[in-house]
Amino acid sequence: MKFEVLVIGGVLRAMPYVMAPYSTVSMLYDENAKILIDPGSFVTWEALEKKLSEMKLPTDEVTDIILTHVHMDHIFSSIFFKHATFHVHEKYAERDYSSFGNLSGQLYSMVVSSWKNVQRLKGSERLFDCIDVFYTPYHSSDHISLVIETQNMGRILMPGDICYTKVEYYEAVKGYKNDEAARFVRETSKKCDWVIFTHDEPLRISR
Amino acid sequence: MKFEVLVIGGVLRAMPYVMAPYSTVSMLYDENAKILIDPGSFVTWEALEKKLSEMKLPTDEVTDIILTHVHMDHIFSSIFFKHATFHVHEKYAERDYSSFGNLSGQLYSMVVSSWKNVQRLKGSERLFDCIDVFYTPYHSSDHISLVIETQNMGRILMPGDICYTKVEYYEAVKGYKNDEAARFVRETSKKCDWVIFTHDEPLRISR
Amino acid sequence: MKFEVLVIGGVLRAMPYVMAPYSTVSMLYDENAKILIDPGSFVTWEALEKKLSEMKLPTDEVTDIILTHVHMDHIFSSIFFKHATFHVHEKYAERDYSSFGNLSGQLYSMVVSSWKNVQRLKGSERLFDCIDVFYTPYHSSDHISLVIETQNMGRILMPGDICYTKVEYYEAVKGYKNDEAARFVRETSKKCDWVIFTHDEPLRISR
Amino acid sequence: MKFEVLVIGGVLRAMPYVMAPYSTVSMLYDENAKILIDPGSFVTWEALEKKLSEMKLPTDEVTDIILTHVHMDHIFSSIFFKHATFHVHEKYAERDYSSFGNLSGQLYSMVVSSWKNVQRLKGSERLFDCIDVFYTPYHSSDHISLVIETQNMGRILMPGDICYTKVEYYEAVKGYKNDEAARFVRETSKKCDWVIFTHDEPLRISR
Repeated sequence: MKFEVLVIGGVLRAMPYVMAPYSTVSMLYDENAKILIDPGSFVTWEALEKKLSEMKLPTDEVTDIILTHVHMDHIFSSIFFKHATFHVHEKYAERDYSSFGNLSGQLYSMVVSSWKNVQRLKGSERLFDCIDVFYTPYHSSDHISLVIETQNMGRILMPGDICYTKVEYYEAVKGYKNDEAARFVRETSKKCDWVIFTHDEPLRISR
Repeated sequence: MKFEVLVIGGVLRAMPYVMAPYSTVSMLYDENAKILIDPGSFVTWEALEKKLSEMKLPTDEVTDIILTHVHMDHIFSSIFFKHATFHVHEKYAERDYSSFGNLSGQLYSMVVSSWKNVQRLKGSERLFDCIDVFYTPYHSSDHISLVIETQNMGRILMPGDICYTKVEYYEAVKGYKNDEAARFVRETSKKCDWVIFTHDEPLRISR
Repeated sequence: MKFEVLVIGGVLRAMPYVMAPYSTVSMLYDENAKILIDPGSFVTWEALEKKLSEMKLPTDEVTDIILTHVHMDHIFSSIFFKHATFHVHEKYAERDYSSFGNLSGQLYSMVVSSWKNVQRLKGSERLFDCIDVFYTPYHSSDHISLVIETQNMGRILMPGDICYTKVEYYEAVKGYKNDEAARFVRETSKKCDWVIFTHDEPLRISR
Repeated sequence: MKFEVLVIGGVLRAMPYVMAPYSTVSMLYDENAKILIDPGSFVTWEALEKKLSEMKLPTDEVTDIILTHVHMDHIFSSIFFKHATFHVHEKYAERDYSSFGNLSGQLYSMVVSSWKNVQRLKGSERLFDCIDVFYTPYHSSDHISLVIETQNMGRILMPGDICYTKVEYYEAVKGYKNDEAARFVRETSKKCDWVIFTHDEPLRISR
């Protein structure tokens, strides 16, 4: 399948009022499957709408959605894709979202309960014959990372939020960081052509 | 009743991905009524949650919500207040929100249909014995402005998005702008002590 | 000459701490001239550095800089181009920048005094045999607008901050706004193929 | 001396154009000394100007500036305080700032060369009889952290960018992160009443 970044993620945090990180939105697709990876945040829904419109892809033709983990800056726009099958790590179901804060409880419940078809992952699957899933619970208990073999960009590492910017990646590669997350990213990226960051521009890796 | 600004609005627009204006959120309250004016955008829901938590005010105790107009940066967080009565200009009901874009249609429909009790305004009411409503369709066809007599801040002008920053206000007062919106703001503000802007800090007026 | 937008401008304003609008940065160039129009704000200098690096254009090979007006979000990065000739409306020289606030006075003085070669405009010139200058003092007393005949994008209108987003443009075209600025933009844009906004994406005009 | 946060830092990063983190600006003061810690970024100079104006403190009465490290989002506004003595770790002087990129080289050189009086630190000093300096080169080679005994807020930890948000702090305290930076922050914060983050709100520590 071919891979395309639809929205490049970033961070907007300006105390005391603005807390708005927003994640990178990507698509993996061929003639049959239209797989959205991390549909992203509220601050980018207009950009996502515009992009899908340019691709002439109605929301109900998105077949699948893969979530690196269940945090609001990654999942909000999942509410727009009611016909998709959701691929999420099984740990997401253990949380009682309604027990969160007064507003966050409502928001998480609304989004999570909008997923009609969920395929729970254990974090060691191979999906769509081209995606290897890794369980990487170093940012949240339900966090997965992906390695994808694509037709147009070689092998791609998507480390999710365990390595969300170029700076973090360089720290891992150079050994400044040496925890489990850093080691996973360092070793796995050696065999990849691109790293797709959740809150930064994609990086081509020279091997 | 007393008046308090809970969240000061602003603008975050960074092409091509980020389109995130967010409006000022205010509350008018006494022992009985808790009236939220423009509940605001997604980018400030965490700040709003924190503020309401500090006030020990659960969302289901908000009695009323007044909307200056039905644009997403003003209305998103209305979904959290399911027990409130919504006061909105009647023109909002003439739009077919589902006919908007693929994502925006869904989003507007979801938010607007979450309002269970709606009191439609004509734009010449007096509400709660202290709020004068003015029909000011210079930004959208359903736009209203408010003049509120408060116990703690004197008389307040809330011009909504027809004058959304201090710079626009100064342009109106000095006569650089002279359209209907500018004239309304110039004349009305003369009798007020504060202007509450939708996307800027409140301004005390020296009379 | 050919025209290219190097950085698309936007607005980042998040009270009480962040006041950071940033303007669109454009270049007009052929084999001899490299003309930067509004070098832009501090928040985009890294993007501008990256862009110039990709173009293999050292800062001292920028021959000319045209400023729509002397506001910090448009002029800050002018300090990097010490060899350029600056084309600015003559009114800019009438202000005593050092009398501004304690920090703003220093900042404006530093930037303005870094311009070694200044060609003062009256606002009715034709520059480089392809740029018509118009004096449009509706945003600041030294504000000019530009109409440029390009080789690659037809005729371009650059209205500066008198019409800085698509929304303002639509309001002018549809007649919601009808002051001098709106009339200038409406009439002039009829003969153009593109409008380049200072704080929004470029717009292709269908004629 | 008394301590006050003048500007709360944050992060504004929106690819591909906006790269604008901005750091917290603090002041330590008594009748004689006015010590600014990390004067901060361009995006907050207007907020800083307003704050100093409210304090009736002209820029030339700032006596000292302490820098946690020499990165632009922390140092830009240092150019406004020409009479101050700068306290910086000695390693800052080993870098050839002019060899940075075409624009960044100029910008860093301009700011660094504006410091007329520099007191080089080794990272084990006690300053002003109330500040303990620690050499913490885990973010940059010239990075220091501070522990300050204040009259109004008890003992304060300023870990600079080795722990720049609450989330990082919690990760360090709970042991999710366990590198040298995390250990320093965890141990040192046990004896403090507040942690002042460079890109997040201050946190009161319950001991």
